[in-house]
Parts: sequence; structure tokens; C-alpha cells
Amino acid sequence: MDAFEDPESTREEILAAAYRALCAHGYADLTMERIGEEFEKSVSLVYHHYDGKDDLLLACLEFMLENYRADTETGPPSDPRAELERVCDRLVLTDAPAEAQRFIRALVELRGQAPHNGAYRDYFTRSDGVLQDRIETIVEAGVADGTFREVDPERTAAMIHTVLSGAFFRYATAEDGEWIPAAREELRTYNERTLYADDAAGETS
Amino acid sequence: MDAFEDPESTREEILAAAYRALCAHGYADLTMERIGEEFEKSVSLVYHHYDGKDDLLLACLEFMLENYRADTETGPPSDPRAELERVCDRLVLTDAPAEAQRFIRALVELRGQAPHNGAYRDYFTRSDGVLQDRIETIVEAGVADGTFREVDPERTAAMIHTVLSGAFFRYATAEDGEWIPAAREELRTYNERTLYADDAAGETS
Repeated sequence: MDAFEDPESTREEILAAAYRALCAHGYADLTMERIGEEFEKSVSLVYHHYDGKDDLLLACLEFMLENYRADTETGPPSDPRAELERVCDRLVLTDAPAEAQRFIRALVELRGQAPHNGAYRDYFTRSDGVLQDRIETIVEAGVADGTFREVDPERTAAMIHTVLSGAFFRYATAEDGEWIPAAREELRTYNERTLYADDAAGETS
Repeated sequence: MDAFEDPESTREEILAAAYRALCAHGYADLTMERIGEEFEKSVSLVYHHYDGKDDLLLACLEFMLENYRADTETGPPSDPRAELERVCDRLVLTDAPAEAQRFIRALVELRGQAPHNGAYRDYFTRSDGVLQDRIETIVEAGVADGTFREVDPERTAAMIHTVLSGAFFRYATAEDGEWIPAAREELRTYNERTLYADDAAGETS
């Protein structure tokens, strides 16, 4: 994860250590001791800054969300179709680097805490809002420059976001990945039939 | 849940008690004692049959899956489009009865165990297969009787299944439900543009 590559403070070093420990152990087996082991300075410094693993993991998620927001709030993309394809390609999790695959599994475990933990539920409500807004911005840019049809950006974004959420959820919690290329191809079909202005619509290819 | 309405044995009564306790307390706060409280006979009988809450919950999930399979393995639907709409309407979780909504939240918690628990992962791999097969059967029936176009049933089923999984996951783990009607409308658009034979394709309305 790029956000953790050059920690600029002790706080960022601790968050980077928490991220590495989460990828290595998953949520259920994660302890403050294991995060401390990833942190090269004093373990007691980790305890000094954070009350427990959930407190630290929420700070870690928040830091990643702020980084994503800073990266994407530079404005609408110059090539909306390419940017949308990049977002949709996240579905193909089997192509992701091993660390990213481990992170997705851990993230699904964290999200699995949300039904009974208000702090996680609040975080994922906000992070869902950021992704929804980003996809809407991409769709609006495509409608504005004529590469996309005159669709409702909110609906298109809700659909793509929900497909991606389902892909992460299924990937992390079941063994069989046969559905992954099929779902990615079908998401492409959806984009072509409903969104892209220059594709012949209505053909069953 | 219909499967639990008329328990035919002590085993089924225990499974029904586990289902009620799961809906009432969620997974994280569920204990064997609480399941015992829902069971009207002897609490020790619950312990006699099951090693712990995960053992009992897995038996409960398995029973529900077998019931779903028995209900749907009667063959292809007589009205494929109506049956597909019924499956897609599951997305609108806010319209579901309160008990079903609580069950969905608990089910997402259970599925959140799968990244670190092989028994849950094995179960959800199989239950995903059953739903994929059912949607494929519906799509094949629609292609055969001419109500659907000549699509690839595997791809269509992978897409719809992944959208539904994402909807369950998002609904259970975030507060904001604004995306729900938007995603349902857009799933309808996807069905109309890619699947239904009698819809004018390529229109953006």
C-alpha cells in the first residue's frame, strides 16, 4: 500500500506496522504484541498511542482513506473510460499482488465486525461514501465529455460499487474463484451496453 | 425462515432455537447459553448434540441450505423472468421483514469468520455454488423459452450473484442505505439491456 511507503512520523510508522501485521496475521489472530513486533522502535510506544488493536486499526483505515481522498480529490479524470476500467479491474482480485490479497481478506474480517461495532460501521459508511463519490465523479466526467451516455451517475456508481463490494466479500470468504473472470466480463458487458457512447448497443455478440 | 416453522425432531427444534438466538443477538454476542434459552426443552440437550456455537451454527446453515436446495431442485422455473426478478428483489433489503434483516446482519458476521475459519469458508463455497447453479438454471430456462437472449448463463449468474452478495455485505456493515434503490434500478437496467429479449436495447432512458 503506497500510503505506508515513506512514513513521515512515529505515528505513521506505527500505522505502517499495523498494516503489515494485519496483512501477515489477519484480524482474528492480530494482537498489539504482533503489531509491536512489526514496529522497529519501542513496543510500549504503540501502547502509549493507542488503546487497543481496534483503536489502532481504525486509525490505520482512516489514514488510508485520507490518502485515497487526497489522491482522487485532484479533480475529474482526464480519461473517464480508462479510469472507470481501472476501478472495475479491482474485481480481478486473483491478479492482485499477494500483499493486497491478504489485505482484502483482512478488510473483509474488519468489515465483518461492523454489524456489532458502531466504530467500524461508521468508518465503512464514510469509506463507502468516498468510493461512491469517486465513481460518480468519473461517470459525470464521461457524460460531460461525451464518452458516456446520459446516464444517472448515482445509479451507475451504486451498481459498480456494489459489484466490487460483492467481489471482495466473495473472494475473501469462499475458495472457488471461477466466478471472478465471468463477473469481470459481465461487468464489461454492462459498461458497454449501458454506459459507453460509442459501443453498438443491443447486440448479444 | 420457513425451514424452521414446523420442526419435526429434537434436532430441528435445536436448529430453530439457534436461528432465533442468532437473529436476536447477532453472532458476536451469541453464546450456547442464549441458544439454550431459546430451546424450550433441556439446555443440556443442546450441549449434548453440539460441541459449541460454531458447530451448531454450521449445522443450522447446512439445514437451511438443504431446504433451499430441496425447494429449488424441483426443476427450471415456469416463468424465468418472474423468477429472476424475485431473486433480484432480494437486493432491496430495507423491504425485508425485521427478522430477515437481523438474519442478514448475522450472516455477514458469520461470513466474516470465513477468512480465518476453514469450516465457514467451506460452507460458503458450497452455498455460493448452489445460488450460482440456481441462477444459471433460471437463465438457461429463459434462453430456452425465448424470453431471454442467447447469453452465457454462467456470466449472467456470476454478475447477479456478485451484486446480491455486495448488497448484503454493504447493507449489514454500513448505515447509509441510499444506494439500495439506485442499485436495484440499475440491476433492472442491466437485465433489460443485456438479458430480456423483448426490451428495446440501446436506449438510454
